[in-house]
Amino acid sequence: MRSSNTHPNAAHPNADVRMRGFAVRSTVQQALAWLDEHCPSTTELMQELISLSDAAGRVLAENVNSTVDVPQFRRAMMDGFALHAENTRGAGSENRLRLEIIGDCFPGEAFAGEVAPGQAVRIMTGAPLPAGADAVLPAERCEFHDSQLFVLDEIAAGKHVGTIGEDITAGTEVFQAGRQLRAQDVGVLSSIGCPAVKVVQRPRVRIVITGNELLPTGTTPAGCQIADANGPMLAALVNRDGGMTSGPDLVPDDRDAILAALKSDAEVILVSGGSSVGQEDYAPTLLAEHGELGIHGIHMRPGSPTGMGTLDGRLVILLPGNPVSCLCAYDFFAGRAIRQLGGRSANWPYRSVQGTVASKLMSPLGRLVYARVAFNPKNSWVEPITNSGSSVLSSTTRADGFVVIPADSEGYDEGTEVGVFLYD
Amino acid sequence: MRSSNTHPNAAHPNADVRMRGFAVRSTVQQALAWLDEHCPSTTELMQELISLSDAAGRVLAENVNSTVDVPQFRRAMMDGFALHAENTRGAGSENRLRLEIIGDCFPGEAFAGEVAPGQAVRIMTGAPLPAGADAVLPAERCEFHDSQLFVLDEIAAGKHVGTIGEDITAGTEVFQAGRQLRAQDVGVLSSIGCPAVKVVQRPRVRIVITGNELLPTGTTPAGCQIADANGPMLAALVNRDGGMTSGPDLVPDDRDAILAALKSDAEVILVSGGSSVGQEDYAPTLLAEHGELGIHGIHMRPGSPTGMGTLDGRLVILLPGNPVSCLCAYDFFAGRAIRQLGGRSANWPYRSVQGTVASKLMSPLGRLVYARVAFNPKNSWVEPITNSGSSVLSSTTRADGFVVIPADSEGYDEGTEVGVFLYD
Repeated sequence: MRSSNTHPNAAHPNADVRMRGFAVRSTVQQALAWLDEHCPSTTELMQELISLSDAAGRVLAENVNSTVDVPQFRRAMMDGFALHAENTRGAGSENRLRLEIIGDCFPGEAFAGEVAPGQAVRIMTGAPLPAGADAVLPAERCEFHDSQLFVLDEIAAGKHVGTIGEDITAGTEVFQAGRQLRAQDVGVLSSIGCPAVKVVQRPRVRIVITGNELLPTGTTPAGCQIADANGPMLAALVNRDGGMTSGPDLVPDDRDAILAALKSDAEVILVSGGSSVGQEDYAPTLLAEHGELGIHGIHMRPGSPTGMGTLDGRLVILLPGNPVSCLCAYDFFAGRAIRQLGGRSANWPYRSVQGTVASKLMSPLGRLVYARVAFNPKNSWVEPITNSGSSVLSSTTRADGFVVIPADSEGYDEGTEVGVFLYD
Repeated sequence: MRSSNTHPNAAHPNADVRMRGFAVRSTVQQALAWLDEHCPSTTELMQELISLSDAAGRVLAENVNSTVDVPQFRRAMMDGFALHAENTRGAGSENRLRLEIIGDCFPGEAFAGEVAPGQAVRIMTGAPLPAGADAVLPAERCEFHDSQLFVLDEIAAGKHVGTIGEDITAGTEVFQAGRQLRAQDVGVLSSIGCPAVKVVQRPRVRIVITGNELLPTGTTPAGCQIADANGPMLAALVNRDGGMTSGPDLVPDDRDAILAALKSDAEVILVSGGSSVGQEDYAPTLLAEHGELGIHGIHMRPGSPTGMGTLDGRLVILLPGNPVSCLCAYDFFAGRAIRQLGGRSANWPYRSVQGTVASKLMSPLGRLVYARVAFNPKNSWVEPITNSGSSVLSSTTRADGFVVIPADSEGYDEGTEVGVFLYD
């Protein structure tokens, strides 16, 4: 593979060229535009049929129409008595009108007989209204004894009766393709008799972690090795954004091993580490040689050594190995792609709040900055997190969220109102 | 069980009492206070040890301290040359200083030799700094040819060198018990060598759906039966709030069957339907007879026929069968309990935004109202959803969210600024 501690130029004749920096850096806007262009349109997304019990949070791949009325029968909306509304005319506590109770009407069962004028049927909420009756007198507005009902109040026809199709009428378009299903949507789909729904497939995401210094999760770091932070972090992010991953694969800093890892059958391949222009940064070169390296190097901090391209028609995103840079590049680019591939909104899943800068947020002109901040919900103060180098992942756990400072800004002075994206 | 269409009082001697209404209705505040009192405190929550790969979104049950420094060695933060900073003093493009390149330093491997004054070692980002060196000169600030390095710039000692414990020092409390783990937290836990974490157990939740009129999910409604909407809706909500459920159990309107269903080994039992004071509303009576019915009937709309109590030390929440009422009562009470039992914040997971009432939101004095509304993010207009009876679940799918109108308000006039909780 390579020999350590030897003269570099022998093994890497082009190293001095490749160590010089990015050929052309892109702006964040250019990178986002490239990314969006390379995500399939919503109609091209892959679909699958899933059981309704798995449908919450998934995105509908087609419109859903109801074939039935909900409900399909007139039903009682209260416990009380089904009767002819006309038989209550003139009733009051001083003028109790007497009717004959001829039976009970329970949910799920049709009443055998018919309610004639002068008669009433005790009815439970949800039960079908018996033939003949046109209203439900609530239990609180009558008295009864044995089979005698005393009506204490007038009631109008149709009162406390749920009509056919009151919730949904047959033929209605209940949901449109593209909707991310909420809990109550699943309830509605169940109510129209839907056993399964066609949804957008969750994109498969391969997570490739490069770096000979890395030990797998669960290993205590020792010597000059560190335990991989990016793999489990990316797996959690991918899962949050609706992607599926079998977990991170640690791959050595070796051209052949990285090329093999890039040739995945996943829809998206995320590569962490070796994304810059150094001697050991194989992934960008491999992508350029075997596929397309569309974007390499972005005017942002952190996350500058980010790349994106395609290989065999699949999206490959090269994320920096520094964990804060990795998180930032995931948030800006990889997460957006994964959400779109799953039919979700491209937007951040983070909650956005307004805050007031309490001490200056610095930013270099010409670079968009992803500034980790503390946010105090009591007074909405926003303060930068100190000790927040791109290798200090704990800065993102001490932060409550981040502020995006555009490339044409030198930062925000004390007192400026800013939008804050909260991590949780 | 019971005979249909027969005289009610024969089978239910106390029916006329029980149909009269709730003995004492509680306010929402009283119900919330009862609920919070009956949720175990955070130190009493059940714990389990889980693999770090399953930890995102879970709540830590104990503080986590790091036993190691991250990193444990001084490392290069850029690609370049490790050298003695003093050897760069006075360097500039007009005064190139020459050093001898003695080897390479790669990530994950200690450099065998020592860098003497006048020498340099090519180093990659993440590699351990070789003995003797005290700075990394970035590749952009030098030229090199064969084994000769030409320094073009001065650099200070310590520059581009990550120090030991820069991210985390050994002994630091990294996270406190009670923290809901973010993706980057999982990354940090991995970086300190954590293979597994002790988290709060996800509460087990039994969902009991009562109602003889109900058909299970996936069945087309027919005759005077309807397909269960509450079961799959509740299952999705429970899952969202961190609970575990094996899915809804449909139980007939039968005292013995409901009592058997209440005697679950889950931490929380949710019963949908039969929660009011009617003849067939068995659950409240059963709970009062066999356990404690702490709250029954709440001054709210919808959701008024909600109950809560305990049975064999387990929390039982009686939710109305009308699906909108069920959603509302879940949102106010059941979800709060499940989130707390899983160690999460009691607060709603819904995003809250400010809006302007565009047409009056009506509300009866004396009842808190959960008003389903449309929210237009462009102009922040808030409008009530029409056709929003408590049996019309589709009203909650047409709604973007809800506004809570307190019991002492008669509603909000056009132009009022209100908080809106968004469903997604």
